[in-house]
Amino acid sequence: MHHIDGGVCAPAGFTANGIHCGIKKGRTTEDLALVESEVPCAAAAVFTTNRVKAEPVKLSMKHVSNGTAQAVVLNAGNANACTGKQGYEAAVKTARGVANELGIPETDVLVCSTGVIGQQINIDAILSGIPALCTGLSKNGNELARKAIMTTDTNYKETAVEAEVGGKPVRIGTMAKGSGMIHINMGTMLSVITTDCAITPKMLKSALRESVEKTYNCVSVDGDTSTNDTLIILASALAGNKTITRKNTDYAAFLEALNAVNTEMARKIAGDGEGAEHLLECTVTGAKNDKTARALAKQVISSSLVKAAFFGKDANWGRILCAMGYSGEVFDPAGTSVSFSSGAGDIAVFEKGVPLSFDEDKAKLVLTEGEVTIKIDLADGTGCGTAWGCDLTYEYVKINGDYRT
Amino acid sequence: MHHIDGGVCAPAGFTANGIHCGIKKGRTTEDLALVESEVPCAAAAVFTTNRVKAEPVKLSMKHVSNGTAQAVVLNAGNANACTGKQGYEAAVKTARGVANELGIPETDVLVCSTGVIGQQINIDAILSGIPALCTGLSKNGNELARKAIMTTDTNYKETAVEAEVGGKPVRIGTMAKGSGMIHINMGTMLSVITTDCAITPKMLKSALRESVEKTYNCVSVDGDTSTNDTLIILASALAGNKTITRKNTDYAAFLEALNAVNTEMARKIAGDGEGAEHLLECTVTGAKNDKTARALAKQVISSSLVKAAFFGKDANWGRILCAMGYSGEVFDPAGTSVSFSSGAGDIAVFEKGVPLSFDEDKAKLVLTEGEVTIKIDLADGTGCGTAWGCDLTYEYVKINGDYRT
Repeated sequence: MHHIDGGVCAPAGFTANGIHCGIKKGRTTEDLALVESEVPCAAAAVFTTNRVKAEPVKLSMKHVSNGTAQAVVLNAGNANACTGKQGYEAAVKTARGVANELGIPETDVLVCSTGVIGQQINIDAILSGIPALCTGLSKNGNELARKAIMTTDTNYKETAVEAEVGGKPVRIGTMAKGSGMIHINMGTMLSVITTDCAITPKMLKSALRESVEKTYNCVSVDGDTSTNDTLIILASALAGNKTITRKNTDYAAFLEALNAVNTEMARKIAGDGEGAEHLLECTVTGAKNDKTARALAKQVISSSLVKAAFFGKDANWGRILCAMGYSGEVFDPAGTSVSFSSGAGDIAVFEKGVPLSFDEDKAKLVLTEGEVTIKIDLADGTGCGTAWGCDLTYEYVKINGDYRT
Repeated sequence: MHHIDGGVCAPAGFTANGIHCGIKKGRTTEDLALVESEVPCAAAAVFTTNRVKAEPVKLSMKHVSNGTAQAVVLNAGNANACTGKQGYEAAVKTARGVANELGIPETDVLVCSTGVIGQQINIDAILSGIPALCTGLSKNGNELARKAIMTTDTNYKETAVEAEVGGKPVRIGTMAKGSGMIHINMGTMLSVITTDCAITPKMLKSALRESVEKTYNCVSVDGDTSTNDTLIILASALAGNKTITRKNTDYAAFLEALNAVNTEMARKIAGDGEGAEHLLECTVTGAKNDKTARALAKQVISSSLVKAAFFGKDANWGRILCAMGYSGEVFDPAGTSVSFSSGAGDIAVFEKGVPLSFDEDKAKLVLTEGEVTIKIDLADGTGCGTAWGCDLTYEYVKINGDYRT
C-alpha cells in the first residue's frame, strides 16, 4: 500500500469540482462541491446519531438506502438543520438540480451540508450554481472540492492510497471537513470516500462500519455530536478486481487500506480541531479487551480538563486518571501506568498505581510538541485502542463565542 | 421558611472553624476546616460516582455507613487522590487526630479533600494544625470554615434557612466549595449540610438522595466528574421536633427546606464556575415526564458549544437543539419552542419547530445579563426540570491550562 495524489479523484471513474455559489455571503470562497462517478456505484454511509438530523441527512439516508449512488453534492456555510419543510424541500431541489444536469436518477444523488444551524439555506444560489458546478467536473477537481467544504477548518483534509486487492491495484481517495461540533459517533461533519474497488453494497457497508468504529468514532474535538455528520463511500468497481462478496482475504486487504485512509483523516481532523495547538493521541494497552481500551482512550481525550492541561503544557496526569474513572469502564487504578511521548522524548508519570517524581522541565519539553501521545497501560490483558483529540484553547472559545457573525 | 445567618453553625448544636495549616504552600490562606456537633448526629452522604475515588472518600464511605457521625474535617490544596496506601493512611490519621482531640470515636469523623490529584498530602501540617483547629471551634466559625475549603472558587458558598417542621422551628445550614471538575452526579466537590431536625438516618438518607437528584445532580461546569465529590448531612436532633421516621408531612416540610438550600447552593456553584461570566439556568417544560425534562436541561448546559455561545452573547439557539438531540432522550423537534430570558427581558427564537426572525440587538442585551435562563417547551406533557451551568470563557482555559503551578 502506498500514498498517491488526487484525493477523491484518485480512484478510476471519479471527478470532482468546487465553486462559489453565494451561500457564504460577502465572500468569494468556494462553498459548493460535487463528487461524481462516471458509472453508478455501490454506496454506503454512516450518519449522525443526533436525534435532531439536518434536512439533507434525512434525504441522503433515503437515497442511499438501496445501496446505490453516483454523486455527492456538499455545501458549506449553512447546515440546513432545524429548518423544517422548507429546508427539506431545499435539499430535494439540490439533489434534483444535480441529477437533471448530470442526467442521472435523483435518488442517486446524496446531499450534505455544514455550517450554521437554524437558518434557511439560499437555495436560489445553489440552483444557479449547479450548471457551472457540473460542467466544471474534472480529474483534478478534488482541489476545489476539498476547499469548498471547509468552514472553520484551517486546512483541507484529503488523502488517497493504492493497495493490492485480489491481485489488482485498487485505489481509495477521500476528503473531509471537520473542526468543531465533533465528537465520537461520528467524529466528523462531512466526509466522502471514493474507491474503484469492486465490492457489493453489503460488504461495502460492513467494511465502512468496521473501519469507522476504530477511526472516525474515536475522534473528539468538543463533545458535541453534530446534526449533520455524514460519511459516504462510493465504489465504482472500475479497478477490475474480482468483486468482493464476502469477508475473504480481498475484503481484509480492502479494509486495511480503508483503515489506513480513515486513520489518517481522523488524525487530521483532531489536529485541526477548532483552535487546536496540539494533536492528542491516547493509546490504551493491556486492557481486558479492545472495546474497553477504546472507551477509556475516548474519555481521556474528551475531558475538558485534560484538554486544557495540554494547552498549558502541564503534565497534570491526575486528570487523566479522573477521566478514566468516570468513563463507566471497569479498570484497576492500582495496576495502571501513564506516560507521555512526543518527538521530544518520553516521560513516565504514574507507574502501577504509584505517582512518580519526574523532571517537570523535561515534561514541559515533551508536551510542547505539536503531536503528543498519552500512553496508558492497564496490565490487565491484551486489549488496545487509540483515540484522537486536541487541546482546549483560548482560540476555541473565541471561535465559538461568536460563530454566527 | 426564611433565610437566617450562620451557615453550618446556624442549626442548634453545631460549631465550626478554619485555619491555615500549611497544605497550600507559600500562602497564609485557610486550608483546613472543621464542622462539629456537640452530640452524635444522624448522618448521610453522597459520594462521587467516579471509579477512581480519592482516599478520604473511601474512608468517609466506611465511617458514614452506620448512619452516625459527629464531625467533618475538610482540606483544600490537595485532593489526596491517586495516592495509594500512603494517601489512605493520611486520611485515617486525619480522622484519628480530630477524634482524639475532640474525644469522640474515630469512626464518627468524616474526611474530605479537594485540590490537586496525584500528590502526597502534607499530613504533618494537618496533624500539627488539628489542636488549634479544634480549640478554635465557635458558633461563628462558619466564616473561617467556608473560606478554608475554597480552591479556585472566587466566592464562599453558604446559606441557611429556618422552616417549621412538626410545629417546631428547624434549621438547615450549609457550606460548599466547587468551581471546576464539576459535572452532574455530583455537581460539586465538597458540601456539608447541618440541621437540628430530629430525623432517623434512614429518612435523612432518603431526603438527601431525593433532594440531590433535583439540585446538585443538575449542575455542570465542565463535564468532569471529580474523584472527590462528597456531600454530607449531619442532623443533631436538637430542634425538639418529633423525630421523622417515615415520609409524612414533617418529612415533606423538611425536604422542602432542604431543596431550597440545595437549589441555592447549586446556583451558586454554577454561577461561580471556573472563569464563568454568566450563570446559565435551563428550564424544560412540557416534557412527557420530569426525568426527560431534567436530562434535556442537563445536556444543554453541558454543551461546550452552547457554553461558548453564551460567553459571546450569541443567540445561537441551533446549538441548543443540537445538544438536546444527542441527549439520548426522545422528543419532537417540530413541537419544540426556545426562548431566552434575563433581567433585560425575554426573546423567543424558535417556536414549534420553526426558526423565528428576532431582533439581534435585543437578544444581545438579554444575553449580556449575569444570569440568563434558557426556556425550552416541548408541548408534549407536564414534565419539567431545571439544570444550572455557566459559560465557557478564556478564563476557564487559562485557569485549567496551568492549575498545578
